[in-house]
Amino acid sequence: MDTIPVQTHERNQFVNITSLVRESLDRGRIREGFGIVYCPHTTAAITINEAFDPDVVHDMLLWLERQVPHKQAGFRHGEGNSDSHIKASLLGSSATVLVAGGELVLGQWQGVFFCEFDGPRRRNVQIQWLGN
Amino acid sequence: MDTIPVQTHERNQFVNITSLVRESLDRGRIREGFGIVYCPHTTAAITINEAFDPDVVHDMLLWLERQVPHKQAGFRHGEGNSDSHIKASLLGSSATVLVAGGELVLGQWQGVFFCEFDGPRRRNVQIQWLGN
Amino acid sequence: MDTIPVQTHERNQFVNITSLVRESLDRGRIREGFGIVYCPHTTAAITINEAFDPDVVHDMLLWLERQVPHKQAGFRHGEGNSDSHIKASLLGSSATVLVAGGELVLGQWQGVFFCEFDGPRRRNVQIQWLGN
Repeated sequence: MDTIPVQTHERNQFVNITSLVRESLDRGRIREGFGIVYCPHTTAAITINEAFDPDVVHDMLLWLERQVPHKQAGFRHGEGNSDSHIKASLLGSSATVLVAGGELVLGQWQGVFFCEFDGPRRRNVQIQWLGN
Repeated sequence: MDTIPVQTHERNQFVNITSLVRESLDRGRIREGFGIVYCPHTTAAITINEAFDPDVVHDMLLWLERQVPHKQAGFRHGEGNSDSHIKASLLGSSATVLVAGGELVLGQWQGVFFCEFDGPRRRNVQIQWLGN
Repeated sequence: MDTIPVQTHERNQFVNITSLVRESLDRGRIREGFGIVYCPHTTAAITINEAFDPDVVHDMLLWLERQVPHKQAGFRHGEGNSDSHIKASLLGSSATVLVAGGELVLGQWQGVFFCEFDGPRRRNVQIQWLGN
């Protein structure tokens, strides 16, 4: 299992980690199978989406900020980051990537993102490969 | 790895692909393990939900349309389909299905859906099986 | 594959099933690989999030209740639980957990939750392990 550090710089930020996932695959040496890109944090997530136009990430973060505002009436959690936990579960703690012929099988526009929702922080991503 | 074409007919549409997943399993020849049903597109997703009453899908699409409207103030992405990208990440780029005794292990009411959020388009679903 | 019963007591409730997942791993006997924690129901889900302060779960359920109210204009599904199906797809039908050195690799604050959205009910969780 690979553990890869990721430094984030904003409270809410998507970091494109596609090249880190590819490098991990090169170390993992499977040719057919899949990998789990896992986030061990409860206020961050992993998602796969468009990695070409950064405006897509801008718009996704804008929507998340509007739908899950930082402070909300009735919230009890003392750390004041319940919005971060909610966003984490909406996007999910891991993403699965396919491997064929020793290569990541991503769609043409797809990239893998580490989604920070309570930064800036030093984070980790864990990657496990399984196959032949 | 199987690549299966899916033709969609609406901008927002859930296509029940359960029988296609079953056919892929028959080709994949594992008896115990699991499969990844993967969407290589950034404006579509995979989800598992009720496949019996089509009104469930109607209501899910209605809610998504209300919560993630097509046009929103502040959106920058030039293609005008940021709502599609957001819905894609909310539902997720893949679903995992279990296999036991050579059969898909779905709950009684569950089906696997390809979720189109920027159709109509010709799409693909990729399926990878791993096990014994 | 393990099938584990879970009894829920509220309409909307997160049940911490981390210890059940650990017990299943002990039976599954893999040392390196991963497991799929799968929900075979269409009005419930699996998520990984903070298991330390119960106020986090309170706030997540409050947000879900506000964003996906029980009754909504235009909903057609006769059972009246479309909100439950929507929440299920937002959080997802399964979560993947990593295994290294024979142990679950969860982050410090992470736990695995069965998310009930149409309880109280007697439910099942299915867990499949794959690795060495």
